[in-house]
Amino acid sequence: MENYKPVWLKGAIILAVNLIDSGYTPVAVGLGERDFYVDVKSDTSITLDEVKKAIKDNAINVSIENGQIIYKGNKIAIAENQISIPLNANPKYFEILNISTHHPNPNEQYVRIRGVAFETEEQLKDYLNWLEKAEETDHRLIGERLDLFSFHEEAGSGLVLFHPKGQIIRNELINFMREINDSMGYQEVYTSHVYKTDLWKISGHYTLYRDKLIVFNMEGDEYGVKPMNCPAHILIYKSKPRTYRDLPIRFSEFGHVYRWEKKGELYGLLRVRGFVQDDGHIFLREDQIKDEVKMLIRKTLEVWEKFGFKGEDIKAYLSTRPDESIGSDELWEKATNALMSAMQELGMKFDVKEKEGAFYGPKIDFEIRDSLGRWWQLSTIQVDFNLPERFKLEYIDKDGSKKRPVMVHRAIYGSIDRFVAILLEHFKGKLPTWLSPIQVKVLPITDEVNEYAERVLGELRKNRIRCEIDYAGETLSKRIKSAYDQGVPYILIVGKKEANEGTVTIRARGNVEVRNIKFEKFLEVLKVEIAQRNVEQSTIKVLKS
Amino acid sequence: MENYKPVWLKGAIILAVNLIDSGYTPVAVGLGERDFYVDVKSDTSITLDEVKKAIKDNAINVSIENGQIIYKGNKIAIAENQISIPLNANPKYFEILNISTHHPNPNEQYVRIRGVAFETEEQLKDYLNWLEKAEETDHRLIGERLDLFSFHEEAGSGLVLFHPKGQIIRNELINFMREINDSMGYQEVYTSHVYKTDLWKISGHYTLYRDKLIVFNMEGDEYGVKPMNCPAHILIYKSKPRTYRDLPIRFSEFGHVYRWEKKGELYGLLRVRGFVQDDGHIFLREDQIKDEVKMLIRKTLEVWEKFGFKGEDIKAYLSTRPDESIGSDELWEKATNALMSAMQELGMKFDVKEKEGAFYGPKIDFEIRDSLGRWWQLSTIQVDFNLPERFKLEYIDKDGSKKRPVMVHRAIYGSIDRFVAILLEHFKGKLPTWLSPIQVKVLPITDEVNEYAERVLGELRKNRIRCEIDYAGETLSKRIKSAYDQGVPYILIVGKKEANEGTVTIRARGNVEVRNIKFEKFLEVLKVEIAQRNVEQSTIKVLKS
Repeated sequence: MENYKPVWLKGAIILAVNLIDSGYTPVAVGLGERDFYVDVKSDTSITLDEVKKAIKDNAINVSIENGQIIYKGNKIAIAENQISIPLNANPKYFEILNISTHHPNPNEQYVRIRGVAFETEEQLKDYLNWLEKAEETDHRLIGERLDLFSFHEEAGSGLVLFHPKGQIIRNELINFMREINDSMGYQEVYTSHVYKTDLWKISGHYTLYRDKLIVFNMEGDEYGVKPMNCPAHILIYKSKPRTYRDLPIRFSEFGHVYRWEKKGELYGLLRVRGFVQDDGHIFLREDQIKDEVKMLIRKTLEVWEKFGFKGEDIKAYLSTRPDESIGSDELWEKATNALMSAMQELGMKFDVKEKEGAFYGPKIDFEIRDSLGRWWQLSTIQVDFNLPERFKLEYIDKDGSKKRPVMVHRAIYGSIDRFVAILLEHFKGKLPTWLSPIQVKVLPITDEVNEYAERVLGELRKNRIRCEIDYAGETLSKRIKSAYDQGVPYILIVGKKEANEGTVTIRARGNVEVRNIKFEKFLEVLKVEIAQRNVEQSTIKVLKS
Repeated sequence: MENYKPVWLKGAIILAVNLIDSGYTPVAVGLGERDFYVDVKSDTSITLDEVKKAIKDNAINVSIENGQIIYKGNKIAIAENQISIPLNANPKYFEILNISTHHPNPNEQYVRIRGVAFETEEQLKDYLNWLEKAEETDHRLIGERLDLFSFHEEAGSGLVLFHPKGQIIRNELINFMREINDSMGYQEVYTSHVYKTDLWKISGHYTLYRDKLIVFNMEGDEYGVKPMNCPAHILIYKSKPRTYRDLPIRFSEFGHVYRWEKKGELYGLLRVRGFVQDDGHIFLREDQIKDEVKMLIRKTLEVWEKFGFKGEDIKAYLSTRPDESIGSDELWEKATNALMSAMQELGMKFDVKEKEGAFYGPKIDFEIRDSLGRWWQLSTIQVDFNLPERFKLEYIDKDGSKKRPVMVHRAIYGSIDRFVAILLEHFKGKLPTWLSPIQVKVLPITDEVNEYAERVLGELRKNRIRCEIDYAGETLSKRIKSAYDQGVPYILIVGKKEANEGTVTIRARGNVEVRNIKFEKFLEVLKVEIAQRNVEQSTIKVLKS
């Protein structure tokens, strides 16, 4: 993209100048990662049509002074680090990619027009082809196209807002994990985001995490926003006496934590400043570690298989005691052996990362390989001898003596936000049906069959299938493409024949089509696919056979 | 309680001194709202037995200097504002109420022993009777007894941690509201808790809410923790163009907001610093207000009826334009009339609160009366002309022109945290079955029928009924009382007869008992009670008839 920067910047200037000629007030131009932008001061939005209408003249005559374009008395700022880019290109072919609004300060609104410009039509075509490909595997673009989430200047970098369709995906992932947690005997809790920093001083995070911790003062006390959920779960553990019979105690929480990553390191949903963990903490006796970890590994693999990750696409690592660490030799040996035996007894292959454990205990990490061949570290199981010590945790043993429990931190998805990003890229936006925000799109061929189409829609809704109807305004093929682009797994095409016979024509992904299927039959098979959370489109397989 | 303070404080001192004699290190004594406390510096917890064993001698000989008790070289601080309380009482009857631990600073742990002491046995009895009554209708005590939630010194005042059983109640309330929202066409979203303060400057909350807003600086930018969700929902609304056909757009969120109330005003879950709203925002055209509000009122009443609030126990208020307000006369009149007609068309009685609307629009508030005769303001429906203006919201009308939508803020429960408190007090801890953390307790009369009891338990679990078993360690009547105290709606007593016949004896609230009921029958009827979210114990009614 680098060599297009001069022509894009010139394009932005041409657009800005044309906007002035049409009565708008552009105030700044610059380059984004893969396009240019023009910011226009405006109390109202500007439509695509209005922008297109404004582009009349490709030849411009402007003077540049102190990094500002001067044109008919207007001054337009060029982004500071882009002032030195030469402006001798002659863009003629423009494409507007996106129009949005933001407030650069509390009293003004800017309309941001993003686009590209090229000297030849071929370059523009090549770029649009490239963009279409890029959009397929960049979760930020998929997220925008599917209307899943957004980041905003007014909110701040790395702070995400999930739109309704993104929240559907989040809720489905959370519901699935709730079932998994339930099956392992976890009890869900819900804890505050804000705590006195005393808590982080007890836990040690105040020192270890200081640069990532949000800290503020209220009425003379210092508080922080939680970077992790463990200390809160510990307070709940400590809220009443526990005995050996109560253990293992397993708390889970879909806890929203905040870690102030460096701005330059933020990247879509993959690296954010606030995210939700599928967090879990187990308080248990030393002799319970192996069985607990075995159960956890088994469930972790079960979860990954639901998303199609298995066999060679999963790697496990055992990290052992580092040179600097706390806890007795005996405890380290017991715990490390427990983790190792757990994996061996399950027949898991794993690599040992010598001395790469945390200072507070050994751990197992899982990595998965996505469809683009990239490895991601997701699940983690970490034994912790440190926090029980710092918080003086206890349980009453059989003989009445007070003993210290061991803690295990675990997450299967890791961060739900990051996992959504990985899924979107792995599946190229074509999520399994149970995760798809729209599961079925109904397309009546003509308005004559709207009634039947609506009846079909109604039945789907009654069965809690997420569905939409797209009436015959556009051509059928355009509507099919649009549904496909929105990642809809099943498109139901209904015409007169279907209406008369109570059937549907089903278009699935990869251009697979089946005709003459009784709607009830489709519904029945689809419900199974969703209930089983199948990773492939099993409905179409069943109906074709 | 006021006149017991001298005898309690003296009791605390006696306990402290006795603890010193037993080798402990008490460091502070003082009075709580209805008891005394002794803080003991200790790296381990202290059990009730250990405390009881320590109380040997009621006569003490201590000297007091500078508000400190001096005893055998130990110094124990008396709470500053309680130094002047006379110490001439002679408590002889002690009751330890609670033992907990906390960290007064990052390096130390205190065990806090809470108790009372009296000069006569009768006074102690009277107090315990009073406490039992008080516990019935004080949500803080109910919450402690039922293990629902806790507040912690280390977390900070007004910041709540929900334990597993409290989270069950929260999740049930949220699930119910999700269904209600769904039925009205809401789309759930999920948004960050942290935002640049620019956002609150645009919305105006930065000035209006300044004293309650948590603000902090990171890398030169000022951020705040959200006191409300509306600006985030507005950013989502603005993330793409909207047309008249899209409206009403309804966003809902179970959003955790933070408002820094004064410490002295905090009170259990009724007044906290962080809480979750069942928030909703509707973006709509002026001509849609009436129908939207009508639907909302209907649903609000439907929700209240589920909890048993109806008829005379609900009051509605319409608040009209105050002297200082924004928006045109026409808009105010239209909106106020829309709210009024909505209520009239539904045949709702309501009172008008002249000029008590917000400066940004008219509103409807609902109050409900609980079983103790107290009125609580819960639901609210507020029209807002202000935020759409400040954020320059738009939709494209039929004729292509850009129009400003109206916003409606609404909440039905209001704050989920506060609503939990109200429900606990209203029902005296005996929640409707669908909300009860434990719905069924199985009591095998002897160990001989454990197998049958466990089979019953397994069947209940399979049907997702929340249940526990309490084996025959204690007497049956003690176990029944304990289940009752835990608010369990159904106690299943199973003996040999029941095991042989596949039946259960059911004990419901209010000492109602039915015998010889086939377990399958009970299960079937119970499932209906839970699925319908019945406010009374309909199962027992059905089975008795």
